[in-house]
Amino acid sequence: MKAEIITIGDEILIGQIVDTNSAWIGEQFNLNGIEIYQITSVHDDHDHILEAIKNAEKNVDLVIITGGLGPTKDDITKHALCEYFNTQLVLHQPTLDAIIKRFYKRGIDMNKLNRDQAMLPENCTILTNKLGTAPGMWFEKNDTIFVSMPGVPFEMKYLVEFELLPKLRATGKTKAIFHKTVLTQGVPESMLADKLETWEDALPEHIKLAYLPNPMLVRLRLSAMDNDVEKLKTEVEKEIEKLQQIIPESIFGYDSETLSEVIGRMLAQKNKKLAVAESCTGGYISHLITSVAGCSEYYNGSVTAYSNQIKEKVLGVSAELLKQFGAVSEQVATEMVEGVKRVMNADYAIATTGIAGPTGGTEEKPVGTVWIAVSGPNKTWVKKFIFVGDHRERNIVRSSQTALQILRRMVLGEL
Amino acid sequence: MKAEIITIGDEILIGQIVDTNSAWIGEQFNLNGIEIYQITSVHDDHDHILEAIKNAEKNVDLVIITGGLGPTKDDITKHALCEYFNTQLVLHQPTLDAIIKRFYKRGIDMNKLNRDQAMLPENCTILTNKLGTAPGMWFEKNDTIFVSMPGVPFEMKYLVEFELLPKLRATGKTKAIFHKTVLTQGVPESMLADKLETWEDALPEHIKLAYLPNPMLVRLRLSAMDNDVEKLKTEVEKEIEKLQQIIPESIFGYDSETLSEVIGRMLAQKNKKLAVAESCTGGYISHLITSVAGCSEYYNGSVTAYSNQIKEKVLGVSAELLKQFGAVSEQVATEMVEGVKRVMNADYAIATTGIAGPTGGTEEKPVGTVWIAVSGPNKTWVKKFIFVGDHRERNIVRSSQTALQILRRMVLGEL
Repeated sequence: MKAEIITIGDEILIGQIVDTNSAWIGEQFNLNGIEIYQITSVHDDHDHILEAIKNAEKNVDLVIITGGLGPTKDDITKHALCEYFNTQLVLHQPTLDAIIKRFYKRGIDMNKLNRDQAMLPENCTILTNKLGTAPGMWFEKNDTIFVSMPGVPFEMKYLVEFELLPKLRATGKTKAIFHKTVLTQGVPESMLADKLETWEDALPEHIKLAYLPNPMLVRLRLSAMDNDVEKLKTEVEKEIEKLQQIIPESIFGYDSETLSEVIGRMLAQKNKKLAVAESCTGGYISHLITSVAGCSEYYNGSVTAYSNQIKEKVLGVSAELLKQFGAVSEQVATEMVEGVKRVMNADYAIATTGIAGPTGGTEEKPVGTVWIAVSGPNKTWVKKFIFVGDHRERNIVRSSQTALQILRRMVLGEL
Repeated sequence: MKAEIITIGDEILIGQIVDTNSAWIGEQFNLNGIEIYQITSVHDDHDHILEAIKNAEKNVDLVIITGGLGPTKDDITKHALCEYFNTQLVLHQPTLDAIIKRFYKRGIDMNKLNRDQAMLPENCTILTNKLGTAPGMWFEKNDTIFVSMPGVPFEMKYLVEFELLPKLRATGKTKAIFHKTVLTQGVPESMLADKLETWEDALPEHIKLAYLPNPMLVRLRLSAMDNDVEKLKTEVEKEIEKLQQIIPESIFGYDSETLSEVIGRMLAQKNKKLAVAESCTGGYISHLITSVAGCSEYYNGSVTAYSNQIKEKVLGVSAELLKQFGAVSEQVATEMVEGVKRVMNADYAIATTGIAGPTGGTEEKPVGTVWIAVSGPNKTWVKKFIFVGDHRERNIVRSSQTALQILRRMVLGEL
């Protein structure tokens, strides 16, 4: 089954709101084997809405229309639908009863705009909206299904989950799908593609691979579609086992996990404590770690040592080393990581010192130069990275993700 | 000028990523008097891309195409563009040179996929992408402009700001628009609307007001469109002066400034130093402060004291107070802020201690309870806030923004 989503609303086109509805519907449909062919966002305009519906009907067998149904929208969408399906608005008594009950419960007066929401196209099937006043509408024409829903996210989600998907599954046209996402870090997309070429070419026809890159992180999504979900799951897991052989050091997790969550789980299991000393990353590593609920179980804390004085006074970095090698150096990174581990009574520690930019670089130490040190119970590991570009925020994010990835490998015993 | 945005990428259609690019472009174009007619998201598919471009050309005079240009995308978009504009891919030497330089700097090897990114349509104008390997491409056909850009948000934003908008303005088809955004903090949108009603109703016809709410921050955007920018500027500034009389304590800055930038500028002027002690905000305040380039001039550093032991050992919080009142208390917040000010030799300091959630709340101290303390050269200010909702990230952001706002008022001498 192939679908197009049409979202109606000027607020999307002027960038006032981000269209998160379409992404949510896309994900839900994908899990039910319904392919989204296109997403189209149009104005609150009669002719434009009709044009979009007509174009969509050419390519798909399911047209989803969201938005344009609020009480102040002048019913543009409903009138457009009536014209398209050659019908008229009539009073839908169960919807009016529900609206009256709703307003009575809230103790506020209804006006004509609210009452008009019960005027619905005569030839559609009503999808009851228990969370709002505008119901969903289901039309059929020449083997194509058209569904109009309100754009309020929680109302739309309710309608999709409890009304739309059950009705779609009943058509027998949805499929079973299984997918799993492998999270990798440290290898750029193009290099990963080289390494995985043979494996990718040998994938069974019905298993699809997608590369989804982020800064310093590439997600590999394997999707399989068939009727037997259990069989698919086994097949996908088998392919992932092969992948683990090819890039063992790059995979850090699966699906929606974050690197901080993965590390947190490992530290909690081992009953080990973590501390962080940050210079150029300025608190961002600590923020990533504390974004995970329950992190107090394994996280002691951090020091952002922005000035040399703090590096000396709080972390115990030697003034002589600072003078001789500068703050951005192997020696200082090493003393920072060992200092914070000691001060915070931790088993593992991370330290960063570098030049985030956009200015402050030199010939010898250009912007993007970052020393990352990671220390565990038995050893300290330190290395220089040079991230290209003078984009401050990006250098901070990259340095932080890289440091966490190194920590993960040290906790695993790989370093 | 009327535009359509076409976003290319399966990952949008299956809901793996939300299309934030289109909203951002919509906002930027809107500010330059360019109307977005439609947003269309299509698959990484040759025919589908061509169909979308053809449909767009019928309705608009500017077609923006984003995505589908990564090194593993098989150049589908570039081949589709070549077919549409009846041209071929040729080597673009400056792009190849830039790619080679990029890889050389990072010390990693290039492969054929990277090299192929320098193969570009012969008849387009190249928009140089300083932040990535895929440049932008500008085509013209029958009075319509077509621009293709990579989908990576920060690369796309760079190209729009520094390459695309200047070129579009040079066509003379954009409109003169003047806008200024007033940044307010601490008053919810609906309350602000009440306070500003009389002022808003008296605004001249050609000055439009938009409320742009964020968590704990409402931006008020004043836009005026006309031919005489200088006149518009004077008029808008006059309205903003009136606004400053109505809500003097809520305005913290203008346009794209952040609270951290405003505070940083004030501290640098006064030659004062800042330090931070974080518990529930976990490093996020320090991250916000260090996101500002040049912050080392006034920022000494921070301690994330996640465990009580660190609060005692590093910040000197009394063990007795911790035991008697708990970590989330007025007493501990006060000792944290004074401790970090002392340890870090700062003039000003912030401290937070609270329950970010989603769990860990009690009857007496529910999730969202946060004590914020701010200390200056002569006094310490401390107050309890209760943020509603158990959303961890949201509580962290709200606590951090509130703490910075209080610091701003203390530096101004308002507290």
